[in-house]
Amino acid sequence: MDIETLKAQNPDHWNKAAAIRALTLDAVAAANSGHSGMPIGMADVATVLYEKHLKFDAARPDWHDRDRFILSAGHGSMLLYSLLYLVGDAEITLDQVKNFRQWGAKTAGHPENFLAQAIETTTGPLGQGLANSVGFAMAEEALRARFGKKLVDHHTYVIAGDGCLMEGISHEAIGIAGRQELSRLIVFWDNNNITIDGTVDLSDRTDQVARFTAAGWHVQDIDGHNPAEIDASITAAKADKRPSMIACKTHIALGHAAQDTSKGHGALTNADQNAEAKAVWGWTTGPFEVPAEIKSAWEEIGRRGAAARADWEARLAEMSASRQAEFARTMAGEAPKNLSSTIKALKKQISESAPSVATRKSSEMVLEVVNPILPETIGGSADLTGSNNTKTGDLGVFDVDNRKGRYVYWGIREHGMASAMNGMALHGGIRPYGGTFMCFTDYARPAMRLSALMQVPTVYVMTHDSIGLGEDGPTHQPIEHLAISRATPNTLVFRPADTVETAEAWEIALTQTKTPSVLSLTRQNLRTVRTEHKTKNLTAQGAYVLADAEGKRQAILMATGSEVEIAMAARDMLHAEGIGTRVVSMPCWELFEEQDEAYRKRVLPGGPVRVAVEAGIRFGWDRWLFGERGKREKSGFIGMHGFGASAPAETLYEKFGITAESVAQKVRDLVEGRWQADPRT
Amino acid sequence: MDIETLKAQNPDHWNKAAAIRALTLDAVAAANSGHSGMPIGMADVATVLYEKHLKFDAARPDWHDRDRFILSAGHGSMLLYSLLYLVGDAEITLDQVKNFRQWGAKTAGHPENFLAQAIETTTGPLGQGLANSVGFAMAEEALRARFGKKLVDHHTYVIAGDGCLMEGISHEAIGIAGRQELSRLIVFWDNNNITIDGTVDLSDRTDQVARFTAAGWHVQDIDGHNPAEIDASITAAKADKRPSMIACKTHIALGHAAQDTSKGHGALTNADQNAEAKAVWGWTTGPFEVPAEIKSAWEEIGRRGAAARADWEARLAEMSASRQAEFARTMAGEAPKNLSSTIKALKKQISESAPSVATRKSSEMVLEVVNPILPETIGGSADLTGSNNTKTGDLGVFDVDNRKGRYVYWGIREHGMASAMNGMALHGGIRPYGGTFMCFTDYARPAMRLSALMQVPTVYVMTHDSIGLGEDGPTHQPIEHLAISRATPNTLVFRPADTVETAEAWEIALTQTKTPSVLSLTRQNLRTVRTEHKTKNLTAQGAYVLADAEGKRQAILMATGSEVEIAMAARDMLHAEGIGTRVVSMPCWELFEEQDEAYRKRVLPGGPVRVAVEAGIRFGWDRWLFGERGKREKSGFIGMHGFGASAPAETLYEKFGITAESVAQKVRDLVEGRWQADPRT
Repeated sequence: MDIETLKAQNPDHWNKAAAIRALTLDAVAAANSGHSGMPIGMADVATVLYEKHLKFDAARPDWHDRDRFILSAGHGSMLLYSLLYLVGDAEITLDQVKNFRQWGAKTAGHPENFLAQAIETTTGPLGQGLANSVGFAMAEEALRARFGKKLVDHHTYVIAGDGCLMEGISHEAIGIAGRQELSRLIVFWDNNNITIDGTVDLSDRTDQVARFTAAGWHVQDIDGHNPAEIDASITAAKADKRPSMIACKTHIALGHAAQDTSKGHGALTNADQNAEAKAVWGWTTGPFEVPAEIKSAWEEIGRRGAAARADWEARLAEMSASRQAEFARTMAGEAPKNLSSTIKALKKQISESAPSVATRKSSEMVLEVVNPILPETIGGSADLTGSNNTKTGDLGVFDVDNRKGRYVYWGIREHGMASAMNGMALHGGIRPYGGTFMCFTDYARPAMRLSALMQVPTVYVMTHDSIGLGEDGPTHQPIEHLAISRATPNTLVFRPADTVETAEAWEIALTQTKTPSVLSLTRQNLRTVRTEHKTKNLTAQGAYVLADAEGKRQAILMATGSEVEIAMAARDMLHAEGIGTRVVSMPCWELFEEQDEAYRKRVLPGGPVRVAVEAGIRFGWDRWLFGERGKREKSGFIGMHGFGASAPAETLYEKFGITAESVAQKVRDLVEGRWQADPRT
Repeated sequence: MDIETLKAQNPDHWNKAAAIRALTLDAVAAANSGHSGMPIGMADVATVLYEKHLKFDAARPDWHDRDRFILSAGHGSMLLYSLLYLVGDAEITLDQVKNFRQWGAKTAGHPENFLAQAIETTTGPLGQGLANSVGFAMAEEALRARFGKKLVDHHTYVIAGDGCLMEGISHEAIGIAGRQELSRLIVFWDNNNITIDGTVDLSDRTDQVARFTAAGWHVQDIDGHNPAEIDASITAAKADKRPSMIACKTHIALGHAAQDTSKGHGALTNADQNAEAKAVWGWTTGPFEVPAEIKSAWEEIGRRGAAARADWEARLAEMSASRQAEFARTMAGEAPKNLSSTIKALKKQISESAPSVATRKSSEMVLEVVNPILPETIGGSADLTGSNNTKTGDLGVFDVDNRKGRYVYWGIREHGMASAMNGMALHGGIRPYGGTFMCFTDYARPAMRLSALMQVPTVYVMTHDSIGLGEDGPTHQPIEHLAISRATPNTLVFRPADTVETAEAWEIALTQTKTPSVLSLTRQNLRTVRTEHKTKNLTAQGAYVLADAEGKRQAILMATGSEVEIAMAARDMLHAEGIGTRVVSMPCWELFEEQDEAYRKRVLPGGPVRVAVEAGIRFGWDRWLFGERGKREKSGFIGMHGFGASAPAETLYEKFGITAESVAQKVRDLVEGRWQADPRT
């Protein structure tokens, strides 16, 4: 269909969609940067979705039972901002649209969930929105099973582009969705045949329809500019029991000189061409001006869900007070009141019994007491359930016929798991945790960064966190992964030394509302070092004195996780020689940095030599080795200087020199003034 | 077919395959760790492949025209070690097999390419081998086009498991292979329906046959224990013009009590069950004993390709001396002799003309002079060609009908690109480089780690390397990615300050044989700071004095990349105030660490205050801020302390305080004794 026919057939629809197109053109031109083509191409789909299907109330973007709309092709952010301005969102005003991509504006280059309530998720890194959406849809299923259809009954809609579908994460996401038969998940593929480098054919010839079908999806192929087809396809998608993919044949930058070209993907800033495009669309008002009747029609769309929202609130109000309170607590992400006492009781029991267990097992022990009192947790593993110790007795398995199940078999999909966990957390009402080997933070990395950027409290249970993994060898032995995790802003990285610290770390992780956590846990058994029960959460201080020097304090050993017991053994050796040695356990650098200077200096006073012990690289440790005014010749590091190797764990620790004797020798050398200029040690 | 029937139908085949099964069982039992089930399940496929199809000469694993065999399901490493021992590989001896997974053995838990010549690639992180294989097959196509079928004419065979096919990277890999019609690539899928957590159905119901078909592959579905079917399927796969996937229905741990269970995936160490399995297989010799006639039959297989290899050598010898020399140079990965003079000439020209260009453009300028003299380069980008500046005029596009083309449109597949580049480098004869945004090192990260571990000189061209990217915002602005790259062992991370340093960095990267390089390049223009031509490659020292203090040296500014010109401007300000200030450019930390202590101290002498400037996080900088014996109160950092934001680049630098004035003020504060205890600054 040509544009004139489209206009003539349904002028009301056309004008609404044209408002999106015109606002996009104006905002991108004003910013002199951005992506014009996608919003112009997908305006018809978005208009029909908002007008006829999306359940929302523009006045209340915080309504828990709204449908979620996720713009996975995040570069087309002006599509979302146009829609929000048009329906009357309180935050995305015309001023915001005019300030597209400028400092301080809520209309960032890519949608950022933390800038406005109505922005469901942060997208831009391609494929992430699609994979988030799987988590959104799973959260809806889980909460519907828990709280009933009266409170939870909505859909998740996604717009994905060719980039989203080429990225590997899309494979993981659609595999999970197909397996889980997420019937409330509906994905529009903006099938415009254009990428930045040219036509899709330059790099890909995948039959997407066949591909989604192979993954168990309901698939339709439509004209993405025909409102009747769009409407019918959404109706059919909602009726099907499978997740739905609607392949929308569209023209990128429809009606613009750059239509159907890769130039049309980017910023269309040529004033003459833009004026021509507006003429083609029949758009006659000035920049950023939407004719009153069109704006008013859009605002009516924005109010379309108000009654449904009011009904929902009435239903909620009819429920028992305790039910309402529990729903409110759950959706707010607040930990239950008895979490703290439960953790304390476990700590006490552990300090008394002092078991030798791997911290991955410690983590399971914590989850065994925590999961029963936090019904909002959903756990899982990327096919390493027995190794990550993430499944506890009471969880049940989340599955098509058991949406109350709280354990997800994610399959060998670290990236998809992490991104779906983000989606669950963003949806609200779910506190997701998931496990894999620490080394495979690499696979999950793009989603882990987004947890931090999006400010969601996703918990990553990363086991087998050093050469202590043993025989699997260097491909599976994390060396630089603690540094990578610590380098990521807004991320709490915990490396607990025993079960007590593991319990403390979990308590902190489970009470976060804006910060993800990484738990770095061992494969190998560790002895309990916290044998004296303290109700206070010492891990919350980030670092603390685990055992002080006897006699004159000549050395401070800093260690994390499995190396704390090595430091303790070295301390014994040094004390036997009369070298007073303090051991500082540092389970969480980020929290230690947040302490005041006085506390930091109390834990790490100047004067004694300092040796850090960690079965990873030194990178980052200098900050603590030098402290406030340390000196290189008074400090040393015992750890890894390159990749690991395949052998039993004990052999590896010995061969790589991460032993109590090495630590003690380093201290002796430093105390006695023998220091080598090797920058690594 | 049951085992008795299989044995009876083809006892010769059965016994050869049983040797793999028995060796696997014995080695895993001896190590008390490893994965028994997969080698046992895939022994028939491997036996037929080696006996009837694989072109190789066990005596010469370095033969350039051998077929490549890649065990993507790397946990089944005993399959490969058994095969290599059986065919008479000189390195993987019986002793090595007996020392499976022990310190110093070549038989590591997962195959490690650097431990034995016959191990083509390092696998274990799932999906990597499959994606490597795409690069192997592309390398073969490119070299065949360049050197002719007489020298280059081989296949790439892969064994992939369910894990490989669930990982997202598999989607990227099969998409590239399908698009490129890599007809010499043949993948066996070990369709055993078992993962670690249970049956595949727990997490996945993808129709793999339909999925590969949708990606343009030739697909067959066979009984993976039937030698005739296996043989016929390989023949058919070789005849087809598309890449081939052969779905091999197998039984994991065939004939063992753990057959068809997830227990069978891991280490089978129960002595009684193992004895029973051997009885079922008709295997009667003791541990690690292969009956002489079976070993001898395998060794005959090992010699099968000797004549072809000799013929090939004769064909090579018939070629002109210059052709032979060029082939030898190319396969050895040696840079051509005129690389150095070409780089010097460019440096001279740049120092004289002193252009203001983005270093991504500088990189293109280098490639424009380098690509013509290095016919072994293959460049590409993950759909950001115009942004990464990776395509030069003479390359041509690698495509089905133009295998001489040297530019690859990888599509939106950073991970697949990186892993395929590793495959090209491992194949030999290709020096691959590829581009994306620096922030998307996240997506490529698992393959980038493997470049380092595998010791291959892949070059990553990472542009838009800071908030200088501007309006695209925090999802696209790398903050921690320099730290992540620097934290990775055996990786050279270059952040050049101008075109001269970019040329020097490329020279170093292109002459590496065992180390990958990351080039961190700007979007924004930078002025030329190296205006005085020096033939010496200063970047090779990692850091050097770019401009020394005038008068008494009171401060040292350390900077990289785009912040070097900020440091230079701060130096001008400080000199105007009489504060003598040295500027040290640090384009490559790793190379600076390799310098001797005397040089390091010459560049960074103790005494003056030190301020580092980099538009990334501080993480890692303390090593240089403190130097050999620095003090915290005499050092400071100007950079990022969290995620970026969406706005024009100049605004962001101003708002985040990465300016010459901020640097100068920090120096003034330190020189005058004003220091704050904020651990971040």
